[in-house]
Amino acid sequence: MNDQRLRAFLEDVRDGRRDVESAVGELRHMPYEDLGFAKVDHHRELRHGMPEVILGQGKTPDEVRAISEKLLERSPNLLVTRASEAMFEAVRELSDQAEHFPRSGAVRVWGERSKLGKAKIAVVCAGTSDIPVAEEATVTAEVMGNEIDTIYDVGVAGIHRLLSKIDRIQAARVVICCAGMEGALPSALGGLVSIPVIAVPTSVGYGASFNGLSALLGMLNSCSSNVSVVNIDNGFGAAYVATLINRL
Amino acid sequence: MNDQRLRAFLEDVRDGRRDVESAVGELRHMPYEDLGFAKVDHHRELRHGMPEVILGQGKTPDEVRAISEKLLERSPNLLVTRASEAMFEAVRELSDQAEHFPRSGAVRVWGERSKLGKAKIAVVCAGTSDIPVAEEATVTAEVMGNEIDTIYDVGVAGIHRLLSKIDRIQAARVVICCAGMEGALPSALGGLVSIPVIAVPTSVGYGASFNGLSALLGMLNSCSSNVSVVNIDNGFGAAYVATLINRL
Amino acid sequence: MNDQRLRAFLEDVRDGRRDVESAVGELRHMPYEDLGFAKVDHHRELRHGMPEVILGQGKTPDEVRAISEKLLERSPNLLVTRASEAMFEAVRELSDQAEHFPRSGAVRVWGERSKLGKAKIAVVCAGTSDIPVAEEATVTAEVMGNEIDTIYDVGVAGIHRLLSKIDRIQAARVVICCAGMEGALPSALGGLVSIPVIAVPTSVGYGASFNGLSALLGMLNSCSSNVSVVNIDNGFGAAYVATLINRL
Amino acid sequence: MNDQRLRAFLEDVRDGRRDVESAVGELRHMPYEDLGFAKVDHHRELRHGMPEVILGQGKTPDEVRAISEKLLERSPNLLVTRASEAMFEAVRELSDQAEHFPRSGAVRVWGERSKLGKAKIAVVCAGTSDIPVAEEATVTAEVMGNEIDTIYDVGVAGIHRLLSKIDRIQAARVVICCAGMEGALPSALGGLVSIPVIAVPTSVGYGASFNGLSALLGMLNSCSSNVSVVNIDNGFGAAYVATLINRL
Amino acid sequence: MNDQRLRAFLEDVRDGRRDVESAVGELRHMPYEDLGFAKVDHHRELRHGMPEVILGQGKTPDEVRAISEKLLERSPNLLVTRASEAMFEAVRELSDQAEHFPRSGAVRVWGERSKLGKAKIAVVCAGTSDIPVAEEATVTAEVMGNEIDTIYDVGVAGIHRLLSKIDRIQAARVVICCAGMEGALPSALGGLVSIPVIAVPTSVGYGASFNGLSALLGMLNSCSSNVSVVNIDNGFGAAYVATLINRL
Amino acid sequence: MNDQRLRAFLEDVRDGRRDVESAVGELRHMPYEDLGFAKVDHHRELRHGMPEVILGQGKTPDEVRAISEKLLERSPNLLVTRASEAMFEAVRELSDQAEHFPRSGAVRVWGERSKLGKAKIAVVCAGTSDIPVAEEATVTAEVMGNEIDTIYDVGVAGIHRLLSKIDRIQAARVVICCAGMEGALPSALGGLVSIPVIAVPTSVGYGASFNGLSALLGMLNSCSSNVSVVNIDNGFGAAYVATLINRL
Amino acid sequence: MNDQRLRAFLEDVRDGRRDVESAVGELRHMPYEDLGFAKVDHHRELRHGMPEVILGQGKTPDEVRAISEKLLERSPNLLVTRASEAMFEAVRELSDQAEHFPRSGAVRVWGERSKLGKAKIAVVCAGTSDIPVAEEATVTAEVMGNEIDTIYDVGVAGIHRLLSKIDRIQAARVVICCAGMEGALPSALGGLVSIPVIAVPTSVGYGASFNGLSALLGMLNSCSSNVSVVNIDNGFGAAYVATLINRL
Amino acid sequence: MNDQRLRAFLEDVRDGRRDVESAVGELRHMPYEDLGFAKVDHHRELRHGMPEVILGQGKTPDEVRAISEKLLERSPNLLVTRASEAMFEAVRELSDQAEHFPRSGAVRVWGERSKLGKAKIAVVCAGTSDIPVAEEATVTAEVMGNEIDTIYDVGVAGIHRLLSKIDRIQAARVVICCAGMEGALPSALGGLVSIPVIAVPTSVGYGASFNGLSALLGMLNSCSSNVSVVNIDNGFGAAYVATLINRL
Repeated sequence: MNDQRLRAFLEDVRDGRRDVESAVGELRHMPYEDLGFAKVDHHRELRHGMPEVILGQGKTPDEVRAISEKLLERSPNLLVTRASEAMFEAVRELSDQAEHFPRSGAVRVWGERSKLGKAKIAVVCAGTSDIPVAEEATVTAEVMGNEIDTIYDVGVAGIHRLLSKIDRIQAARVVICCAGMEGALPSALGGLVSIPVIAVPTSVGYGASFNGLSALLGMLNSCSSNVSVVNIDNGFGAAYVATLINRL
Repeated sequence: MNDQRLRAFLEDVRDGRRDVESAVGELRHMPYEDLGFAKVDHHRELRHGMPEVILGQGKTPDEVRAISEKLLERSPNLLVTRASEAMFEAVRELSDQAEHFPRSGAVRVWGERSKLGKAKIAVVCAGTSDIPVAEEATVTAEVMGNEIDTIYDVGVAGIHRLLSKIDRIQAARVVICCAGMEGALPSALGGLVSIPVIAVPTSVGYGASFNGLSALLGMLNSCSSNVSVVNIDNGFGAAYVATLINRL
Repeated sequence: MNDQRLRAFLEDVRDGRRDVESAVGELRHMPYEDLGFAKVDHHRELRHGMPEVILGQGKTPDEVRAISEKLLERSPNLLVTRASEAMFEAVRELSDQAEHFPRSGAVRVWGERSKLGKAKIAVVCAGTSDIPVAEEATVTAEVMGNEIDTIYDVGVAGIHRLLSKIDRIQAARVVICCAGMEGALPSALGGLVSIPVIAVPTSVGYGASFNGLSALLGMLNSCSSNVSVVNIDNGFGAAYVATLINRL
Repeated sequence: MNDQRLRAFLEDVRDGRRDVESAVGELRHMPYEDLGFAKVDHHRELRHGMPEVILGQGKTPDEVRAISEKLLERSPNLLVTRASEAMFEAVRELSDQAEHFPRSGAVRVWGERSKLGKAKIAVVCAGTSDIPVAEEATVTAEVMGNEIDTIYDVGVAGIHRLLSKIDRIQAARVVICCAGMEGALPSALGGLVSIPVIAVPTSVGYGASFNGLSALLGMLNSCSSNVSVVNIDNGFGAAYVATLINRL
Repeated sequence: MNDQRLRAFLEDVRDGRRDVESAVGELRHMPYEDLGFAKVDHHRELRHGMPEVILGQGKTPDEVRAISEKLLERSPNLLVTRASEAMFEAVRELSDQAEHFPRSGAVRVWGERSKLGKAKIAVVCAGTSDIPVAEEATVTAEVMGNEIDTIYDVGVAGIHRLLSKIDRIQAARVVICCAGMEGALPSALGGLVSIPVIAVPTSVGYGASFNGLSALLGMLNSCSSNVSVVNIDNGFGAAYVATLINRL
Repeated sequence: MNDQRLRAFLEDVRDGRRDVESAVGELRHMPYEDLGFAKVDHHRELRHGMPEVILGQGKTPDEVRAISEKLLERSPNLLVTRASEAMFEAVRELSDQAEHFPRSGAVRVWGERSKLGKAKIAVVCAGTSDIPVAEEATVTAEVMGNEIDTIYDVGVAGIHRLLSKIDRIQAARVVICCAGMEGALPSALGGLVSIPVIAVPTSVGYGASFNGLSALLGMLNSCSSNVSVVNIDNGFGAAYVATLINRL
Repeated sequence: MNDQRLRAFLEDVRDGRRDVESAVGELRHMPYEDLGFAKVDHHRELRHGMPEVILGQGKTPDEVRAISEKLLERSPNLLVTRASEAMFEAVRELSDQAEHFPRSGAVRVWGERSKLGKAKIAVVCAGTSDIPVAEEATVTAEVMGNEIDTIYDVGVAGIHRLLSKIDRIQAARVVICCAGMEGALPSALGGLVSIPVIAVPTSVGYGASFNGLSALLGMLNSCSSNVSVVNIDNGFGAAYVATLINRL
Repeated sequence: MNDQRLRAFLEDVRDGRRDVESAVGELRHMPYEDLGFAKVDHHRELRHGMPEVILGQGKTPDEVRAISEKLLERSPNLLVTRASEAMFEAVRELSDQAEHFPRSGAVRVWGERSKLGKAKIAVVCAGTSDIPVAEEATVTAEVMGNEIDTIYDVGVAGIHRLLSKIDRIQAARVVICCAGMEGALPSALGGLVSIPVIAVPTSVGYGASFNGLSALLGMLNSCSSNVSVVNIDNGFGAAYVATLINRL
């Protein structure tokens, strides 16, 4: 409840349009709708100026359809992450604009495409196996109103490839950097650019990569100070943070 | 080597002021000075527009003095993190402006105090035991040209205290959020503001806090999407990222 | 063997109705039946005043049927947790009252529905993905004679939703609180109510959630002192503890 | 802010005793005092009906003294946990009633000693090395108005000692059970009593006890369903939960 | 090569029946056969007085058949652990005596059934889910010439069931004790008997049982000193050690 | 309470020498003395036929003295493990026979030295740094009535040294094998002898030895089947198990 | 860009054949081709004198085909590791020389078979289950121009088998040593030879082998100093390092 | 025992100079001396052609002196790693050539300084805090007869500094690369050179560096294939492997 509505509310009390007893009750409750299995929070949309996003994982296609329908009634844009093929079918029945990105599992309805960011966001990844995570970041950042510059396969084992792209990356306002295995790319990249680096460890690797733990630890211990980190494989979260920075 | 210097360099080759053989060698080497035990990298200062910072931990007071002397010759500002009392004495001999912050172990020379940030940075912490980390973030962000709003002791167990400060926090451009134990503060805070949250897990706690690991994992798994994370107790890194964002 | 029966037993010895030699042997043995693969312990039922519960996981449907048959002979109520579809079929053949809860895998025969608790138990969960665990807790607590108030999808990222439900939660005698990812809900909730909080970490999440480990650690380190914790995904155990508290 | 005060507040608005603009501001702020380094939260005391407790660890004796002074002004009872000798001295200067428990590091002022619990709380520990944690639980539970029955050194390796005390333990309303090493005591005890068991893993042990991790995991995986768990060495937290249960 | 054969060998050298050059080579080589993919070591059989055992896991049915054929030529007894249905079929083609134990995955040819142990081995397990591991131990110990007394479902949550069986267990020369979850049974059992306890953690459990890690740690930290531990689910290894002890 | 005493007890009831009411109470209690801070359990001595042992770690010298005094009244032998110099002084005041072993921290009173074992116990260690643990095992096994053969510094990196001692080791009835770092010695040794191997991981090493965890894991995964394992640095426990085996 | 080409480049600038502005740009870029999803780096081939290798895992068969086609245009040799059957089919369509090694998942085109190594590389493994990893090492080392001597099934539990092969192993220039479970083989082998040992932990084992972690830790803590380690199951990496050493 | 000595030995048997019975015994024993607490193994020196090295950690100065005296009798070179000041004093009394390196704790007697390596070994480290480990590697490699080129403070955050030194590093035969924190340097370096890289993780860092674990995992997962890894802080081991490679 923002200050303006709160003020109006208290004026109602002052002017007798709202009795005290009911006001006590109302003040204790926040407005939201009830879908039974999930409460769609319009508060969050108001607060962050971004469309709600559905995490497909752990939901049934029917649940995804029901939430999507509710959300599409009031927003032209929708994102479902970690969605199955069946979830894509469910959303496509609601909107023929629905796009599917099978590598990352993203489903997107991108009706309103105005640019809200101040500059580009660069999305960089170390190896071809990291592309699914980079794609989730790209698809997310686009639907949130950013222009993206994607630069793939520039891992530290071939540092010259990274060096040749530094000018493009530095031209962005913020860079999302996805890497698995030893997760060294954000450190090397961070030393070469003066923009914030959002590091995304990926679960790419085997053996002692421990499903992304090694990359995660590497990024948290980065000797480059312009690096902050999100969860393993969390391309969505990285795009969200980058979007906030790009709108400042 | 920036484009301008590279252009001048190649013009020298073109115009015969520099012979090819020596140019090959020069191109392969970057300029930096040699202090014997540590190479002071002025590249990084150029790239990031920030004063070099010395990590006191693992160095001797004499090493800190020698590097500090070198750096103070060309910059009015200096920061030594995780410094001992003896390191503070060493720096104070070089500059009577030197300040000491014993809780966080920071030593600072803050000669040039112009504001470079676009707005304030909020520094929030969960409990009084987290203050040393919050202080490192504050001291760092100040010397990098930011105005700070510090809000301490607003942990999630007393959520009303946090709620009463949200307007102040939202007024900042970015918020640094320090918490130990379960590290839940960034999640709760992230849901209440629409600015980027830089989360700093602290090693505060005992038993299953595992020296900050629990807080770190909590923050990486935050259900609030505007949260990114730095290393345990890394107030400095959080301030660095926040500074970059605040200058955009 | 309770004091009463022990007294009777010793009176038999005293009065010669039971000879010493056989009494030695009897005293060393406890009464239970032998099904071959599993000993049904009626001791525990006597001690705790609750129906025996079968853990379906790791058993075959035939084993579940055999144990269920034995138990239904002497109790109108039965609970099978983590049961498969086939186990449900097996129990339904024994009782047409059998209910199936596929999300949580619970199978229940709820013949005797008298209320044994002093007040309601609140069952709260953070996100829709946590509902299976909350459902296991609800189904269990109901069959043990409690009235339940379920409050779903009130995670800390939307703290206002939680705040609007605090009165309902505080009205319960104890609250079961299920959350995955960072597991921050019990801490926030614990600071808002004055009743015991039984925290259940769930395996919901990905990457550094490590199958519920992050949520578990977060809850163990809770800065709210009214929180105690059970195993990951252990909705049953939480309901059991809550039932004991609700009967006091 | 409870309903009563909120009602009075809104009546002030309705009746013009409080203007709308200031009411907006007031509603957004919660009452607490500001000690500079720590905000003493009287909300929590109101909510939980218990005196505030100071965690000594990580504070200076001067900080402990300052917070203690503030709290003793309004409450006859005070508890400082994990306190040093110097903290005890600081508190004794404020109150000659101050008691010191060196094994557990507790400092206590116990002025108001009325019993608030419905029955006894049993405090059980496995070995003599677990006594410091059991003592923290006992000291805490006493100052919160409970009568305690302490039963020490009844580890599972000598199960007969435990069996001989079961009647006493069962006579309590809730039992706190402290154990290090393999942490098996809560499982064995839980199978013998029908009251809630609050298990406290201790850091007692060596090698693969990993400072209490083994005991913690053992308790979380207890096959006795009446067991819930708090953090390693957290005697205070166990007493807090037990107190809530004992007051129901 | 035992002393007798070595003596004969050196006598051959001394007496000129074997020339020095070939003796050098022979001394450097140990006798074994070569199946290409696996060297069957008859040394080990000689050393330990036990039939070779094949670990089925990681082999193909064809490999199991080939090794089995080789071994059955010289021994009436054979054990394949962690074997698939197909491996059982392969062995049954070689011997119609082959038995299959699907719960534990054991395949056994038990032609020579003389008793080699001095007394019984007791095999105890905590819950019905631990039976597969207990079965592997039982099947193994039998084929190695021991008489077994199996006592199942005597977990610590129902300690009276365990107590009523102590005389039977103490009558054995050594006891194998299998338990998952918190793994507390060996500690409780170890305090009640004066024979060696071989503890086998099982992977039974969920959540924080971490596939047997909790049980393993519990057993390693046992407060009963007569307990030693083998790998998770390693019923075979426990039976092997118990057999050696039972033959002493 | 053994069968004989139980029989006598019931005969007293039968013959009226003991009334029923007091018999109920007595049956529920086990005989032990109460020292206040620690209950000395004579049951365990009776059950296992071994003197009680005091774990010095976590106790004060005064506590050690008090328990020692009690125990020395009824037993000529006493062992204090992980004892400090001050504990040794405390015990020496009670008995001038007290020996001190500073490397392992053992304190021993060895008054009754009759041999109870059937053969020797071999104590083997990998490197000189493992000697403290091997010494704890040796001192313990001696006071429990075993003859010991110690074989030090035969790590796997110099396998010939181990091979040259195999005859001596095989001549023992059981071998205790202590090793840190990679903990490979029990595997190599286990393949060379046909007696049970009690493996003791030591905390010797650095870096990725993780205070003995690497050695522990190595031993648990031993490819030699005659190996069972005790806790890290637990020389005492290994000696206890070995003693039981040596008395069979 | 090597010195020769750099010299020619600068001579072009000097002689006016290349203008300064374009030279600046060119110097900042490195030559490579762009396949869209993966940049084939010929730099690496030049630097290391070895054919590029494709990691099949995480790629589609179509991606493998496209990269393979590109690479086969300029090199007679190709290796795809961790390849599926479908990837083998894809490569065989490009070259009928393609070989498939199903156990290790390797696909190889070995057109140019000249020997580049100075001596043999020995590939040793502990058990038959380790053969897939050893095979990956062998297939890799062969296609890189080495002669291989493979010695399988010489684990430490049968140390005589290893001893009988030491002469063959010592005759190599470097040895690759694969072992799972406790990973003790490199330590034992390292003490017997004077050549570098490249240790490869394998994920063979169960329970506390934790998918190769135990073997990895064992090898890192090896008491033999001639051992270095690569990732779990990384036969390819071991062969790569061994090849470099064999070419020196 | 090499072939030559074995041949002579058998000729003695053949020719009757050695009777069979004593030969059996002798063949079972290997020659080494006995210092009581540590067996000095001359086998290892013979096998590896290097002086024995003493690990100071875990020994007393007297033990170091005794072993050093024995070793210096037959070798002009000696190395004590992880030595204390007192150990240095002990060695200096034996040889006035003794050098002390306090940062790494190395003590060295370097009497015989002939070069045995084919080329230089490069020792590279990421930051000044890694110098102690790099120094241990350098001191070790020198005393083993190698010429060293040390290149310090070239971490990946300032990649240009590394690039400017690549020619020097590539000129070596093998490179030892020490790095803490994220441990990214070996990956970046490995992609730039075609020589073997021996990676040494250091315990430098804080928080989630977990005493070198992050660096260790990073290096094991290196995307550069010419990297193998030794234990955390194991400069000695890296130098040992590098020496073997440099002598080939």
